[in-house]
Amino acid sequence: MSDGLFDGVLAAGPVAEQVGDRAWLQAMLDFEGALALASAEAGVLPADAAELIARSCRAEDYDIAEIGARAVGIGNPAGPLVRALTARVPAEAAAYVHLGATSQDVSDTAAMLVTARAFDVLRGELRECGVLLARSAETYAGTVMAGRSLLQQAPPVTFGLTAAGWLSGIAAAIDRLDEIRRDRLAVQFGGAVGTLAALGDKGIPVLSGIARQLGLAEPALPWHTERSRIAEVAAVSGQTCGAVAKIARDITLLAQTEIGELSERGPAGSGGSSTMPHKRNPVAAVLAAGSAGQAPGLVAALLGAAAHEHQRAAGSWHAEWRPLSELLRTTGSAVHWLRTSLERLHVDTHRMRANLDETAGLLLAENVATALVSASEGAVGRQAATDTVADRCREALAGTGELADLLAADPVITKYLERRRIDELLDPTTYLGSTDEFIRRTLDNWRTQS
Amino acid sequence: MSDGLFDGVLAAGPVAEQVGDRAWLQAMLDFEGALALASAEAGVLPADAAELIARSCRAEDYDIAEIGARAVGIGNPAGPLVRALTARVPAEAAAYVHLGATSQDVSDTAAMLVTARAFDVLRGELRECGVLLARSAETYAGTVMAGRSLLQQAPPVTFGLTAAGWLSGIAAAIDRLDEIRRDRLAVQFGGAVGTLAALGDKGIPVLSGIARQLGLAEPALPWHTERSRIAEVAAVSGQTCGAVAKIARDITLLAQTEIGELSERGPAGSGGSSTMPHKRNPVAAVLAAGSAGQAPGLVAALLGAAAHEHQRAAGSWHAEWRPLSELLRTTGSAVHWLRTSLERLHVDTHRMRANLDETAGLLLAENVATALVSASEGAVGRQAATDTVADRCREALAGTGELADLLAADPVITKYLERRRIDELLDPTTYLGSTDEFIRRTLDNWRTQS
Amino acid sequence: MSDGLFDGVLAAGPVAEQVGDRAWLQAMLDFEGALALASAEAGVLPADAAELIARSCRAEDYDIAEIGARAVGIGNPAGPLVRALTARVPAEAAAYVHLGATSQDVSDTAAMLVTARAFDVLRGELRECGVLLARSAETYAGTVMAGRSLLQQAPPVTFGLTAAGWLSGIAAAIDRLDEIRRDRLAVQFGGAVGTLAALGDKGIPVLSGIARQLGLAEPALPWHTERSRIAEVAAVSGQTCGAVAKIARDITLLAQTEIGELSERGPAGSGGSSTMPHKRNPVAAVLAAGSAGQAPGLVAALLGAAAHEHQRAAGSWHAEWRPLSELLRTTGSAVHWLRTSLERLHVDTHRMRANLDETAGLLLAENVATALVSASEGAVGRQAATDTVADRCREALAGTGELADLLAADPVITKYLERRRIDELLDPTTYLGSTDEFIRRTLDNWRTQS
Amino acid sequence: MSDGLFDGVLAAGPVAEQVGDRAWLQAMLDFEGALALASAEAGVLPADAAELIARSCRAEDYDIAEIGARAVGIGNPAGPLVRALTARVPAEAAAYVHLGATSQDVSDTAAMLVTARAFDVLRGELRECGVLLARSAETYAGTVMAGRSLLQQAPPVTFGLTAAGWLSGIAAAIDRLDEIRRDRLAVQFGGAVGTLAALGDKGIPVLSGIARQLGLAEPALPWHTERSRIAEVAAVSGQTCGAVAKIARDITLLAQTEIGELSERGPAGSGGSSTMPHKRNPVAAVLAAGSAGQAPGLVAALLGAAAHEHQRAAGSWHAEWRPLSELLRTTGSAVHWLRTSLERLHVDTHRMRANLDETAGLLLAENVATALVSASEGAVGRQAATDTVADRCREALAGTGELADLLAADPVITKYLERRRIDELLDPTTYLGSTDEFIRRTLDNWRTQS
Repeated sequence: MSDGLFDGVLAAGPVAEQVGDRAWLQAMLDFEGALALASAEAGVLPADAAELIARSCRAEDYDIAEIGARAVGIGNPAGPLVRALTARVPAEAAAYVHLGATSQDVSDTAAMLVTARAFDVLRGELRECGVLLARSAETYAGTVMAGRSLLQQAPPVTFGLTAAGWLSGIAAAIDRLDEIRRDRLAVQFGGAVGTLAALGDKGIPVLSGIARQLGLAEPALPWHTERSRIAEVAAVSGQTCGAVAKIARDITLLAQTEIGELSERGPAGSGGSSTMPHKRNPVAAVLAAGSAGQAPGLVAALLGAAAHEHQRAAGSWHAEWRPLSELLRTTGSAVHWLRTSLERLHVDTHRMRANLDETAGLLLAENVATALVSASEGAVGRQAATDTVADRCREALAGTGELADLLAADPVITKYLERRRIDELLDPTTYLGSTDEFIRRTLDNWRTQS
Repeated sequence: MSDGLFDGVLAAGPVAEQVGDRAWLQAMLDFEGALALASAEAGVLPADAAELIARSCRAEDYDIAEIGARAVGIGNPAGPLVRALTARVPAEAAAYVHLGATSQDVSDTAAMLVTARAFDVLRGELRECGVLLARSAETYAGTVMAGRSLLQQAPPVTFGLTAAGWLSGIAAAIDRLDEIRRDRLAVQFGGAVGTLAALGDKGIPVLSGIARQLGLAEPALPWHTERSRIAEVAAVSGQTCGAVAKIARDITLLAQTEIGELSERGPAGSGGSSTMPHKRNPVAAVLAAGSAGQAPGLVAALLGAAAHEHQRAAGSWHAEWRPLSELLRTTGSAVHWLRTSLERLHVDTHRMRANLDETAGLLLAENVATALVSASEGAVGRQAATDTVADRCREALAGTGELADLLAADPVITKYLERRRIDELLDPTTYLGSTDEFIRRTLDNWRTQS
Repeated sequence: MSDGLFDGVLAAGPVAEQVGDRAWLQAMLDFEGALALASAEAGVLPADAAELIARSCRAEDYDIAEIGARAVGIGNPAGPLVRALTARVPAEAAAYVHLGATSQDVSDTAAMLVTARAFDVLRGELRECGVLLARSAETYAGTVMAGRSLLQQAPPVTFGLTAAGWLSGIAAAIDRLDEIRRDRLAVQFGGAVGTLAALGDKGIPVLSGIARQLGLAEPALPWHTERSRIAEVAAVSGQTCGAVAKIARDITLLAQTEIGELSERGPAGSGGSSTMPHKRNPVAAVLAAGSAGQAPGLVAALLGAAAHEHQRAAGSWHAEWRPLSELLRTTGSAVHWLRTSLERLHVDTHRMRANLDETAGLLLAENVATALVSASEGAVGRQAATDTVADRCREALAGTGELADLLAADPVITKYLERRRIDELLDPTTYLGSTDEFIRRTLDNWRTQS
Repeated sequence: MSDGLFDGVLAAGPVAEQVGDRAWLQAMLDFEGALALASAEAGVLPADAAELIARSCRAEDYDIAEIGARAVGIGNPAGPLVRALTARVPAEAAAYVHLGATSQDVSDTAAMLVTARAFDVLRGELRECGVLLARSAETYAGTVMAGRSLLQQAPPVTFGLTAAGWLSGIAAAIDRLDEIRRDRLAVQFGGAVGTLAALGDKGIPVLSGIARQLGLAEPALPWHTERSRIAEVAAVSGQTCGAVAKIARDITLLAQTEIGELSERGPAGSGGSSTMPHKRNPVAAVLAAGSAGQAPGLVAALLGAAAHEHQRAAGSWHAEWRPLSELLRTTGSAVHWLRTSLERLHVDTHRMRANLDETAGLLLAENVATALVSASEGAVGRQAATDTVADRCREALAGTGELADLLAADPVITKYLERRRIDELLDPTTYLGSTDEFIRRTLDNWRTQS
């Protein structure tokens, strides 16, 4: 059905191929192979047979479309896959294929493997984003730019602090990915109803063996109808897309023609417009936003499918497959486009300073008010100081004069602050507070994450 | 990426091919063809050139994967498609390809065409569902079964009334689909910023011509960043899936082993289980539920992308493409599986009566209470009557005796109701109120919809 | 629980009081009153009794908190309300209270009444928004400003066209509200299981009477577990919020310090910041966006509750009450803040022109390219023309010279276009295409809506 | 606005009061108090002044409605609260109120405190659920009941295993709550733009002090526009509701009249129906489902608000407040109703066995097939064995005879299995596989969590 018309833009980067149909098929086969080998280890079937089964578990040997078509009968592709695998395995081993397992064991464990492999790749991409952001945080630690609140200019920040803030979202996503990868991506193996009855007293050893073979966690009991794991996978994807969306939004805003503090310098042909040749669209950030924006609904779809009835759900199980793949794919695409945007990012430090200077001293009003409170040793209260300075700002905005002059002419202010001190207070580089420390702490955390 | 592993189960039925990549590509080309022909009509370009362009607009002549790959540069597939079309059109006409249009005109109009074609097919499937339900409503108009409230048995209904209720949801979805198809699926044509500036004073005639050519509505002005149309398409899909989900839930519940009032009788191999051969899974209803369950999140994704900035959105536009295709596809799948389930549906009228008889008179308590109020001409109030009958029911549940005997032994009741009347009141077929009328009204509406 | 800490900002405007607990209680009582009167008309109970019941249906006579607390027992507030009403009604009428109805009849019909009343108020607010937008569309029909695509400057539009585009979203929302109000807000009346069994053959006349009394539509059959109506109410609310979100986003973007084309001029104290006195925050637009942004998730919550089991849902019914109230409330708040923002809106036409002039001719590149194609009678194809002009633009951006000069020096261009013509083509007011016509058509539609 | 009409049912339990307006107000004041004390410790203001401020931070001294009404001006309630606090504090300390902080510091830290307090209460409720489930897992470890797959009877499980499965979802939710409580609920303190500029070099010590005072984590840098924390809070709430929804769904299904394996035995008046006196509605489970069902949409709302612009969001921040409160509230309600349902739960072990015996041997088909494979040492393959047994099952279903007899008459089967062995294989208690081990492992995990 999908031949990739939108994949270049909305399924970009290396995660997409980890969640495609072939990846799912291979993951299902990996379960069958691991089941056979683990069962042999536990003495449930002959080692030779297990070996023959495991060797037949290569996705390229199967016809995905045919398996998909045959899935119609029982309502899931695991059934026809097992039939196809059984047909492929030499006769002496065929009796041992899928022994003790049910369709949901295959597809749930495959979901965990697909997720694990997607996460491994996604983590790499996120780390690359983090490396680029850490570098910006360091390089531009002292590069002042206007802070912006409700899209209005506000007191100064530095671009390094902005980048550190972006980095903290990426780092939090990686932390959470790691936890889930280690503790929550677990094999599902329970047989028809979660008792592993068909394996008699060999159920637990086989379960352990499969987990070991596949590098997944071993659950205390089957989780076929307890979907917290899916919920957590969905959640971290949503969280990751949120972190990306914030950064992408900021980049597109800072790249506006009228602001011009950031731009993407991509290869020829990227970001241009056929009819508007002058444009330099931040296309990578736009696509990061477009990919990330699909996540919240998909998370809701997965959370909404949590109530799996009894020992197998009448619909909620089936409702997970596509949204899970779509969510991993769009998360991968969002992160990849973010990485691309960051690689292309050009920082115009002159424009940053020029935009800041436009509202100049007005942004530093808080600085003056605070100095007034402390210079007066509380004689002028915070509210009064704020009000006084605000009045002078309003006069400056109304064109009555330069702010520095107006402040210096205010008797309440000059009682406590000299003209030289006022000028100092209106210099943005003196009003950065804990900026350096915040950047350093964020970078320290980042370095220990590795 | 997708080779159909899950398509058999989650992209079932004829809608899926209307929303695949090929269908999107053809719809984009249909826009370009219609644009050329309408422009020629308006005197913007030579008729011969338009004809040459229109003839080049067949999807099978283009390499979808290549166009998808080239979309990476500008962030949408319309750009590379126009390049490919221009390359394919004879030299004398090439200059006229895409004249006055922008990428978003192509892809938004294509979205409307894809939706229109999906709706046309979906409507047919919904009508088939409706025909089957109308037949059941008629056939089983008088077939009593237990009503069920909070999953507990309640006073009787008939299966015909149940089917009429199901039908009303399907009919409402069709009504809404028709309105949107007629009034809201409109061509998008505005050029770079929605002014059609490149066409001078020929913009409106060309717009009208495109709408006529494509069988879409003509908007008052371009809607490239006013996405109500997408919201309405999303909403009706969500509504349709809701109607399907209700019916599918009821079918799976009525098909429970312990209830057994409905079952699906599909072809060999459908609904069976390899490890549980006795099972007759209502697999079509399960997949209808599984398909429908994906819709609410996808609707949220589309509504969440409504805030398109200025004259072209920085991400929200891109965020619509996949969720829109996914939503139409899963809606089509849900309706198709519902149709399949209804075609396979076997109604066990004996089981319906047997289940009802289990709680027998207890369900008719309300009937007795009401009769008591009216026989006593209000001397026994509604609350008192309800309480009295409830007390007798509790005794019957506790095993003190048969309900009819207990009621007949109650002095408050026997003061107003004879034993024969009590027996009559406990007969479910006497307690169906307006059931026949409700069924008739629903069927009358259905027949006028056509 | 809620004493209004956030209500001023997130439950603003007159819709909020239509969806509060008191409004729900009154709506429930209105159902009981209408039921009594309609039943009397149908001869089910004495007219005197009905009158006594109807007179007892004033919300102010009931203790909401107590009814809420008693709802715990049966799981909905309708039950305790009926008990409270019965206790209040004079003895001779008490027996007739709630006759033939069930809790869900009360609460579902109340949901429709609450929605109808909220819609009536909401429509008024939307019309006010529309009036303000229509005025802007007219006043600023010719006021050029930069178009913006992916947040980059693009060819010119006018602020009138922008306002007309915003208006079209509001008008579509009103159209849809009107349809639903008229056709889909229907009384629910079915008794315990939707048969109206307790009313014998009087069910339909009573149903018709209630609909007439309450000004709601009369459904063909009870819809207690067919929730399309709720889905449509949810959808139009989501659509309305989407239309608001688009406008609010645009306003906040156009109000950025660096762009400054729009600002809100609210009363003293609105939009200021205690620590940043120079700021003029577009606080109404921000709160419109903040209110509207809550809608998509709430719509998903309501759509996700569609599968109501059998004749009464085991949870999905209860899951609707809060999200429905929240959704109507946040929609009302969004529209009210939009209205407020539009009332406060100051348009800086000089700044619009100044921003446009910054990228001046570059935005008109398309104009020149198109003129070149047509002046050359196709000798220069669209692609070649676009490429040639684009090259000159790149030189201008690189600082090689003024664009007009560079174009006039290009041999391909000068072969077909004189210098005077080039200057004309670079004047934004000549490049507005169908702008006037689009505005006129939109206003015509608006005026016929009334 | 809300007087509690629906609170009894949808805001049940002790979490609700932790998220009400009063709780928010107190949390805001707690921030102001902690800020003052921490600032004094860091030498930013006199200890006496801090003490005076801290003493004024009692919610009961403030008029919530008035603060809410005044919030309209600047768009959030923190501003007017600070004004009200300043007015209340003795003159000598007033100048020091809110020093260095901005509105978002107040409301974001309050959001974390509200969440922390809600989590602490929620955890207690979840532990109570867990204790009840652990007891059931132990008590009913060997109580066989029918497994159910797609709502059809399947091989046997035990009610103990079912309870252990439910427990695992609750335990996972607690684990995740604990992680978030410890690591992610962090103070927000950054001043106007996240630099703490107003505090000069005292920013970090004050930040640390606030975190210590409030028992919240200390972030590396301000997170005012990096909303991963909100995303994680939303996600764990959604996960918790999913775990509840699964259990509640199962309980309502097992409580169906026709199944009757579970019922709720609540106090008089709970679960009854005025018109259907025989009913014993599992009203607590129904309300647990109704509360939990609201979560996925609210999670989507919070994730959808992730893209906070620059240093303060133009709408996304405001869009979080209500959905966050609603989500915590509905999660608390869901868990409380689950606890109530579990407290009331009556297990009918006889009915469990009786339902299982209805399909008797048919459910054990897998058992016979597996035994056949192993008794034949692979001579009869898995597929052949399954098919043979399935054929006999179909005959039994068709009424040809008892399954045991039919199996014993099959030559392929009797070649390897004696009649006595067949009877044994059809006994459900022999076919429970690793059930005991799974229960034990789950209980071991639970006990170590504490």
